[in-house]
Amino acid sequence: MFITFEGIDGSGKSTQARQLADALRAEGRDAILTREPGGSPGAEEIRALVLQGEPERWSAQTELLLFTAARRDHLERTIAPALSAGRIVVCDRFADSTRMYQGLRGGLRAEVDALHRLMIGREPDLTFLIDIDAETGLARARGRKGAEERFEDFGLSLQQEMRAGFLALAAEFPKRFRIIDGMRPSAEIAAEILALSARALDARA
Amino acid sequence: MFITFEGIDGSGKSTQARQLADALRAEGRDAILTREPGGSPGAEEIRALVLQGEPERWSAQTELLLFTAARRDHLERTIAPALSAGRIVVCDRFADSTRMYQGLRGGLRAEVDALHRLMIGREPDLTFLIDIDAETGLARARGRKGAEERFEDFGLSLQQEMRAGFLALAAEFPKRFRIIDGMRPSAEIAAEILALSARALDARA
Repeated sequence: MFITFEGIDGSGKSTQARQLADALRAEGRDAILTREPGGSPGAEEIRALVLQGEPERWSAQTELLLFTAARRDHLERTIAPALSAGRIVVCDRFADSTRMYQGLRGGLRAEVDALHRLMIGREPDLTFLIDIDAETGLARARGRKGAEERFEDFGLSLQQEMRAGFLALAAEFPKRFRIIDGMRPSAEIAAEILALSARALDARA
Repeated sequence: MFITFEGIDGSGKSTQARQLADALRAEGRDAILTREPGGSPGAEEIRALVLQGEPERWSAQTELLLFTAARRDHLERTIAPALSAGRIVVCDRFADSTRMYQGLRGGLRAEVDALHRLMIGREPDLTFLIDIDAETGLARARGRKGAEERFEDFGLSLQQEMRAGFLALAAEFPKRFRIIDGMRPSAEIAAEILALSARALDARA
């Protein structure tokens, strides 16, 4: 089973992805945790190439091609082998993030979808959208430090647009999306996500 | 005007591309010389990422996406601005090389064509195919030294297949392709290419 986490910056999706992988393993299930962009040695190198340097270094189109190359490598080298071996794959961000950032923000949704069909083809079985309000996300993201944060500082209107975009995406793919209220205590969120995951896993077993 | 050079390894296309750019400038025409993969700072970095390391480091699909990303950057940053400024662009390899190496050899011609339509869209105005026999190409390519030669050592049967593939491509795009006999002395080849280029340039003026 392929489980992904999506949400605006500061939503807590990385924390929740890690906690879900840990909790599944504590239950005796075989789960791996991975992330995008990156998740395989080659994809991590492409990630570094994309995120280094000035924001205008790559056009939206070139960036989309590089992220798709990274995703293809990640899928081939990490995700698909784990799924074939019967493992659960928990992934922090996947194609939905590209639909938002390069698709909605970059105005390339048609190209994003065409590239996905052509070169990726795989959708998650279950996607948790950690939904928080834009102000909270922005405050949390700005409170962090890090070298690769340049995508995260486009201000409140972008966060609002991304939040609405993710909710629209959940409406577009209702079978696999679960909208999670991310404004609650972290442990409460984690418990809900674990319960929903366990139910989906048991339904497939 | 956008002029490209194609041909199997060892065909002399890089030498001929450089000589054509020099000869056009000697005639007082404004020409730039560029190459693929590479041709812009970002594309050169992608080139280095693709060509470093073990041959099996990237799948054919990932390699195709990376080369398309490099081509998009090269087109945006180098080729299109020069053409817009009325300059002649002479390029050593372009999309036809991808049609051959990832398309024919890699079995991805449908993906190559779809990606080209979606993310590149531009074809050369004139393409010189420097045609030599496979044995000569292989002997010349093996006589060279260089760190990035790993694409060039797949043996005689590949060279034969690529030669036939390039000739088939010339038949597919007859309006822009000119097949040049590359077994003659270099100066004689250069003179023919300069004459054909000047005629095409004058026809457009």
